[in-house]
Amino acid sequence: MEKCGQLYEGKAKKVFATEDKDLVIVSYKDDATALDGQKKGTIVGKGAINNRMSNHLMKMLGEKGVKTHFVEELTDRETVVKKVSIIPLEVIVRNVAAGSFSKRYGVEEGTSFASPTIEFSYKDDSLHDPLINTYHAIALNLATRQEIEEIKDMAFKINEELKKYFLELNVKLIDFKLEFGKTSTGEIVLADEISPDTCRFWDSNTNEKLDKDRFRRDMGNVEEAYAEMMKRVFGVM
Amino acid sequence: MEKCGQLYEGKAKKVFATEDKDLVIVSYKDDATALDGQKKGTIVGKGAINNRMSNHLMKMLGEKGVKTHFVEELTDRETVVKKVSIIPLEVIVRNVAAGSFSKRYGVEEGTSFASPTIEFSYKDDSLHDPLINTYHAIALNLATRQEIEEIKDMAFKINEELKKYFLELNVKLIDFKLEFGKTSTGEIVLADEISPDTCRFWDSNTNEKLDKDRFRRDMGNVEEAYAEMMKRVFGVM
Repeated sequence: MEKCGQLYEGKAKKVFATEDKDLVIVSYKDDATALDGQKKGTIVGKGAINNRMSNHLMKMLGEKGVKTHFVEELTDRETVVKKVSIIPLEVIVRNVAAGSFSKRYGVEEGTSFASPTIEFSYKDDSLHDPLINTYHAIALNLATRQEIEEIKDMAFKINEELKKYFLELNVKLIDFKLEFGKTSTGEIVLADEISPDTCRFWDSNTNEKLDKDRFRRDMGNVEEAYAEMMKRVFGVM
Repeated sequence: MEKCGQLYEGKAKKVFATEDKDLVIVSYKDDATALDGQKKGTIVGKGAINNRMSNHLMKMLGEKGVKTHFVEELTDRETVVKKVSIIPLEVIVRNVAAGSFSKRYGVEEGTSFASPTIEFSYKDDSLHDPLINTYHAIALNLATRQEIEEIKDMAFKINEELKKYFLELNVKLIDFKLEFGKTSTGEIVLADEISPDTCRFWDSNTNEKLDKDRFRRDMGNVEEAYAEMMKRVFGVM
């Protein structure tokens, strides 16, 4: 499969058309941004790690019955995925308080929830991706009630599978962000990526952060954390 | 019924104990605050208007089967209500986009929703009353799932009754904020107040604002707007 014209360039990925109108090629970059775009940098090797890890996890989820956009890994950084129209909601599932949740509600990082929680942000850079609830997402025609229910069910199932998967690698899945898209046939599938860019991973013994928080918070050893996660997922790189 | 010691002084009301441990006396002030407390002022006559209007509306809602904290109006500014522990969620029902909703989601003020929406804010001054969803309110033990479902049902019923009531007075109910409390017997009742401080009222012909937005936005004729609402509710003052 060959890349035709570039359709889109995002903060961490480029998307190219292919000769098949229902397929696109995603190309992962090493570029990193944080804090609503105010912080910019490069995490060397991130593009390849995120591409390979995300594909691996999407394949695993696919085997568990979760529909995803994944089709075929082309190279270290490039993957064929189904072309979807992204539903403009960022879906955040949390098992443990951290990040914006801790700040917003004054809850110490590391506080576990009795049950996982879910929240939505309206994907709109000019509005800074504001938190939005189901009633308002429907009122703004971002998704239908049925679509939101389907997305919630998928997100909680994905959480259960990922939690179990990572715990065997001595990694606690603290929280993560998902995006969903609609294919040309109207099917809702998991899109975007699952990686240290979009998940909080803590070592289950030491609580060491193995994710993008090391970049966001200038903690150092950013590349090392991404490489460590890669090693745990694939054994050797 | 006599006031004993003062229990609490809020931005717009004082609360006093009585000889009955299950009853308190609320005393309405003319003080007004807005913009998260940054703007302070006085709206002359507001205390009496809000007290009388809120009591009138709570009585009306009580007749429609809505449980409220209202017991007895003592004077122009003072009312006996059931003592409740306030559930720390501000409940906002919206029929038309305005205020923080319009700003947050980039939607023009005056845009009607196909169905009313509801949202919750976590009542915590130090956190600036952040928006919170059902999952997080439950995770933070602010209320149980059952309590939240009961509050939602009550809030939507109150909206239907108030919308109908105000439309007959040529007033569109744009949105409003409710608070609920739990009595000593565990019953959930509507508490706080229903007034131009807590509702957006627009004249149904001219869209003229007849509420606290005139104070928030320095529009002038603040006292006149409160008096106009009072006149529409009571005929004459």
